[in-house]
Amino acid sequence: MSSGEFDLISRYLAPLSGVGAYGLTDDAAVLTPPEGKDLVFTKDALIADVHFFADDPPDFIARKAMRVNLSDLAAMGAEPLGYLLALAFPNDMENIDGFMAKFSSGLKRDQEEFGWSLYGGDTVSTSGPLMISLTAIGIVNRGQALRRRGAKPGDNIYVSGTLGDGAFGLKCLKDEFRAAKTSVTQPLIDRYHLPRPRLELGQRLWGIATSTMDISDGMAGDLRHICDLGGFGAEIDAELIPLSDEVGKLLESFPAYKKLVWNGGDDYELLFTAPKDMDGKIEKTARDINLALTKIGHVTTKKNVIIKNRDGINLLQDDDQGFRHF
Amino acid sequence: MSSGEFDLISRYLAPLSGVGAYGLTDDAAVLTPPEGKDLVFTKDALIADVHFFADDPPDFIARKAMRVNLSDLAAMGAEPLGYLLALAFPNDMENIDGFMAKFSSGLKRDQEEFGWSLYGGDTVSTSGPLMISLTAIGIVNRGQALRRRGAKPGDNIYVSGTLGDGAFGLKCLKDEFRAAKTSVTQPLIDRYHLPRPRLELGQRLWGIATSTMDISDGMAGDLRHICDLGGFGAEIDAELIPLSDEVGKLLESFPAYKKLVWNGGDDYELLFTAPKDMDGKIEKTARDINLALTKIGHVTTKKNVIIKNRDGINLLQDDDQGFRHF
Repeated sequence: MSSGEFDLISRYLAPLSGVGAYGLTDDAAVLTPPEGKDLVFTKDALIADVHFFADDPPDFIARKAMRVNLSDLAAMGAEPLGYLLALAFPNDMENIDGFMAKFSSGLKRDQEEFGWSLYGGDTVSTSGPLMISLTAIGIVNRGQALRRRGAKPGDNIYVSGTLGDGAFGLKCLKDEFRAAKTSVTQPLIDRYHLPRPRLELGQRLWGIATSTMDISDGMAGDLRHICDLGGFGAEIDAELIPLSDEVGKLLESFPAYKKLVWNGGDDYELLFTAPKDMDGKIEKTARDINLALTKIGHVTTKKNVIIKNRDGINLLQDDDQGFRHF
Repeated sequence: MSSGEFDLISRYLAPLSGVGAYGLTDDAAVLTPPEGKDLVFTKDALIADVHFFADDPPDFIARKAMRVNLSDLAAMGAEPLGYLLALAFPNDMENIDGFMAKFSSGLKRDQEEFGWSLYGGDTVSTSGPLMISLTAIGIVNRGQALRRRGAKPGDNIYVSGTLGDGAFGLKCLKDEFRAAKTSVTQPLIDRYHLPRPRLELGQRLWGIATSTMDISDGMAGDLRHICDLGGFGAEIDAELIPLSDEVGKLLESFPAYKKLVWNGGDDYELLFTAPKDMDGKIEKTARDINLALTKIGHVTTKKNVIIKNRDGINLLQDDDQGFRHF
């Protein structure tokens, strides 16, 4: 390494530390929990060339690592409070300082965007690829954390935003749509690099949703998990799945990619179920936060997940549901 | 992998999950913080063949990952509450199930030993070595977390237990003391594999210690950090540094290894400073918890750390203080 662990931490990470983190000079951070709140914890690890590309811009890598964890907080209805960060640098990595300057500027930007700060962490060396592990801490009103469990047959199934953008963005990066215009591909690449955690939505779903999760590994597979928890199934209308203009345009030229919309990963939208009488509240919520919330199907008593086309044919094949990050 | 992420989690990790972790089926865990307590957070990453050997027994790897984090909680005076765990498995790792069966049995054993439980985590694949990242959550009476900052010139410097055992244990594993008997080497290897976080001590040092830290990277270097925070120095009497019988025996045959006692890593003992009038309370604490607490020197107004031998000669060389795990 070009500079030792203490130098890296003091130069790039200490300025990002929050109250109670003591400028990262102590063995651990101390937090006085706010009154009347529960704490929410989640942890994701990201590996170079599995979850991001080693040559992605370092500030994007930092922001993606934050945002995938923030998406988990959103799914719990929580507000971000702070995070801990572990970084493993490859032994042969050149210019760690240069990487950290950009990486920490990405952290700083999204700390400001999402109103949270660094509580601690660790930097180590590895003979393997760059690894980032982030632990996110959020707060939620006591007893009001959203859950995955709770959907009932007959509940409507909603998703936020549009699906497939991240997965199509990854295909764009891999140059699979060579004929497509940059005005179509660039917004999708941006979505892949920078997921948009739906924190504001999550914080409004208490009392509305019967179950909530974030979609990270493809809608179909993730929906199966939520159904399995209750022993239920789901029927989705493929025509109702909300698509961005860009994905719509790509599908005109490349219709074989349709199933990426429900099998691709990296959506980081929220999927939630709600009783039928909540439709009005959900419409109001969508207007209030200016975010599309689309009813795409309903929970069934059958134990399988079906995605029907307009002819009533199930488009989901058994082997469609095991998404793996590239 | 021989089984998917969900199978691994449900089979080996879900049974270890605590209240609020929802059997690891949710996007995050929820914790209602105990009244009148502050929360303490710390995170360490361990890489195979940097922080442990890839072929170490998996249950020892698990317990070491826990204990190095518990040692940080001890240094804050905190009581363990729960932890989050991220595991990165090498792509070519054979028999992940077999590894996880043993690894999770190690987690279970030390969950019971230290009274805490699993709050969540992540499993991923990597082209690199096995990686374990653990985030530890502890609680401490409000406002009573111990700090590294606070030592004053004239304060005595104490350490718990004995120093050097872990570092000598590592040398034993590397077969550097071939003439030594197993009765001497095995206890040291055990200390290397299984640090003993000094939680009970940490929880009693509020009101006694002016600064506290855990010794993980060698006493001399760690002491320098605590001194740098206050702009002070320290003078240590080499003859007073507490040694185990086993290290004492090895030093008779291998005196050149003496400096491992202050430069070796993997001690995971507590180092603390305290005003002179606390000697009595510290003696009583040592008796109460049946743990040696040894006065080894004092804080000085000079800005350097000195380790004096009986002739008053400083044994610490400039290049001695940058310990790296093997």
